[in-house]
Amino acid sequence: MIQASICTIGDEILIGQVTDTNSAFISKSLNAIGIKTTRMLSIGDNRDEIITCLDNELKKNDIVIVTGGLGPTKDDITKPALATLSGSAGYKESKEQVEIIGRLLKDRGLDMLDINRQQAMVPEKCDVIPNMLGTAPVMAFRFGPERYGHQCMLYSLPGVPFEVSGAMPDVLSDIRMHFRTDDIYHKTVMTYGIAESALAAKIEGWENALPPEIHLAYLPDPLTGVRLRLSIYGGTAKDDAATIETHLAGLRKILGDAIYSEQDDTLQNTVRRLLKQAGKTLSAAESCTGGMISALITSVPGSSEYYLGSVTSYAVSVKENVLGVPADIIGKYGVVSSECAASMAEAARRITGSDYSVATTGIAGPGGGTQTDPVGTVWIAVSSPERTLTEKKIFKNDRTRNIERFSASALDFLRRLIQSEINN
Amino acid sequence: MIQASICTIGDEILIGQVTDTNSAFISKSLNAIGIKTTRMLSIGDNRDEIITCLDNELKKNDIVIVTGGLGPTKDDITKPALATLSGSAGYKESKEQVEIIGRLLKDRGLDMLDINRQQAMVPEKCDVIPNMLGTAPVMAFRFGPERYGHQCMLYSLPGVPFEVSGAMPDVLSDIRMHFRTDDIYHKTVMTYGIAESALAAKIEGWENALPPEIHLAYLPDPLTGVRLRLSIYGGTAKDDAATIETHLAGLRKILGDAIYSEQDDTLQNTVRRLLKQAGKTLSAAESCTGGMISALITSVPGSSEYYLGSVTSYAVSVKENVLGVPADIIGKYGVVSSECAASMAEAARRITGSDYSVATTGIAGPGGGTQTDPVGTVWIAVSSPERTLTEKKIFKNDRTRNIERFSASALDFLRRLIQSEINN
Repeated sequence: MIQASICTIGDEILIGQVTDTNSAFISKSLNAIGIKTTRMLSIGDNRDEIITCLDNELKKNDIVIVTGGLGPTKDDITKPALATLSGSAGYKESKEQVEIIGRLLKDRGLDMLDINRQQAMVPEKCDVIPNMLGTAPVMAFRFGPERYGHQCMLYSLPGVPFEVSGAMPDVLSDIRMHFRTDDIYHKTVMTYGIAESALAAKIEGWENALPPEIHLAYLPDPLTGVRLRLSIYGGTAKDDAATIETHLAGLRKILGDAIYSEQDDTLQNTVRRLLKQAGKTLSAAESCTGGMISALITSVPGSSEYYLGSVTSYAVSVKENVLGVPADIIGKYGVVSSECAASMAEAARRITGSDYSVATTGIAGPGGGTQTDPVGTVWIAVSSPERTLTEKKIFKNDRTRNIERFSASALDFLRRLIQSEINN
Repeated sequence: MIQASICTIGDEILIGQVTDTNSAFISKSLNAIGIKTTRMLSIGDNRDEIITCLDNELKKNDIVIVTGGLGPTKDDITKPALATLSGSAGYKESKEQVEIIGRLLKDRGLDMLDINRQQAMVPEKCDVIPNMLGTAPVMAFRFGPERYGHQCMLYSLPGVPFEVSGAMPDVLSDIRMHFRTDDIYHKTVMTYGIAESALAAKIEGWENALPPEIHLAYLPDPLTGVRLRLSIYGGTAKDDAATIETHLAGLRKILGDAIYSEQDDTLQNTVRRLLKQAGKTLSAAESCTGGMISALITSVPGSSEYYLGSVTSYAVSVKENVLGVPADIIGKYGVVSSECAASMAEAARRITGSDYSVATTGIAGPGGGTQTDPVGTVWIAVSSPERTLTEKKIFKNDRTRNIERFSASALDFLRRLIQSEINN
């Protein structure tokens, strides 16, 4: 199997001021064409270290993908390091990239500065893959067997995640021209509402009965629940799909509606699928989630087709005056109550005219908890023309994580309601 | 200077299904006590590879921090690998961790399963740092000079980011007991509204005049703008602060109000600071940002003190009926217009009773663009009792990035308005 190493360059990563999201994106892209990522590395903006490290990774891998350190500023030194590593005597200009730079700057109403034009200069011994979305092109270096004992390729990409995702398709095409790739078959099952350890206990018997060629991984995430990934390496996609399908029936029986999708998916996208299928619309009324439910729903392209909008009623006055929650309900039950959540959900449907709605009211923390309703408590309500349901959840996390869990639980509750009404 | 390496273990990282956020958090924590992270590594759930890799990192570093692979499920094999690496003959139970596990499960209304209790078993040759927030404890392994030629420590932490941030203070205390740490002095200046290359050109003269001991880094981020980081390694904090301060005056003069903070900060936290200082309240009316502005504002603890709420008016009907934007305005100018944005901002103030407000209306994409208003166009409005201002921006990114840029630009516009009114 073709093996790859992904190297991120930049002091900003090592110092922890920036989180590396490129490596995950790149490995996912490589994986999809059957290339196994063996290591990911982050190193600093240090010329010698870059050379030593990349040299070492090239020895052990067929492909090395480098991101970062190509910016126009002085702290970016990947390019001279690559010139040395590749034995380039000098630099050449990529005419195609110069044109792209000019166009990008013109779109922004800017003139081309020397510092911009220099971005199109690359070491002599590289092939250029133009970067349509940014000023620094992708550089492809080919090393023959005389150098590392095997043919290998090094691709240097800029560090901007948006540019990386734009450039990867061309990098993958280039890889396919140089290597014959194997297959990896993955099947992903998305679950929500069962904690990782409880899930493992629940499916232990089923897991033990899996044949050895199927590898199972548990991938918990606060926004998507526990993702179960079944993988078969080096087989043929058709046989692998059939093998996994025979085992999935058992899993479906054990987990029931805790499974919300049988592909790599999100709760908000599942909600989209269900609403589109039913031709129904949605709205939200948020309190403690502060807008995150709405932001998750609208992160899905095309969400304007079924999502009408929301009210974030952080203050009690907004709950009463904008949403129209009766002051009685808040006076009698308090804002963190089943009654208030239900009234918010119904109000959202009333004022927006949507078919479905979801509402949250609770305490994200760090302050504001009480004996009966500690930090981490949330009341969630979902409403349809048929019914309004509420549920209470208590999470014991910090503010950020509580808001995430409240939001994901609300989307899951909504998903279950819509699913139950569509299937009837 | 004490050097550290951070190793993340887990196939889910290498396959790209999960993004590693722990390494950034850990390196930031280490950096704050003067420990330099030299490398970050991600490797798979493979016993031999884990042992080889950690052995190698221990040779070259004083401290190795490992995260992941400690879950209760079968695919997690960090613990047996560490038992082998440390030469532990067997396992021991951490009584303290067993108690924590019991308490955590009880809080969630769950019984302790065998699989949970096994989490408290650790290799004989380690010290346990209890993990208050999860079932797997932190394991600290000490290696004397006879093993690697220098004293070194390996800390194994669980992979859940929330547990990592909870455990790091105790890990840092333990590190301080074993090592004498140096100082690194950082000064961060937050800027918004000037692209990285334009910023570099603008401050080139100033940058060239910096003394060699001051290292400058540019850290662009869509949500916070370009962060400028000035660093001095190995000096004394007091002298370093004075050295950097003498150079900052020039930077302030060049950049003016593009600087929004002189510490590591966010736009939403700057808005908080300004509003608290002025004793004023805030609301929002969102369209194309879909709730993200509200989510950013409420990500700040204590935001309920000044933030009243928002309306996400995704549908035209919600703009008209919930916010009260006149149908005339939409009919005459369209929803993506200065007039509609201004009307939305004023409506938000009117219906919530806030002092300030911010509004957005535009086209996040991928669909919906027109000749005059392509995908990436946004009208932003900010409003106070004194005035309502609007501005148009065009970004040429994908949906996710456009929503981020729209939201950050809106917070920055709001920040500038509040700042100008407070200072007068």
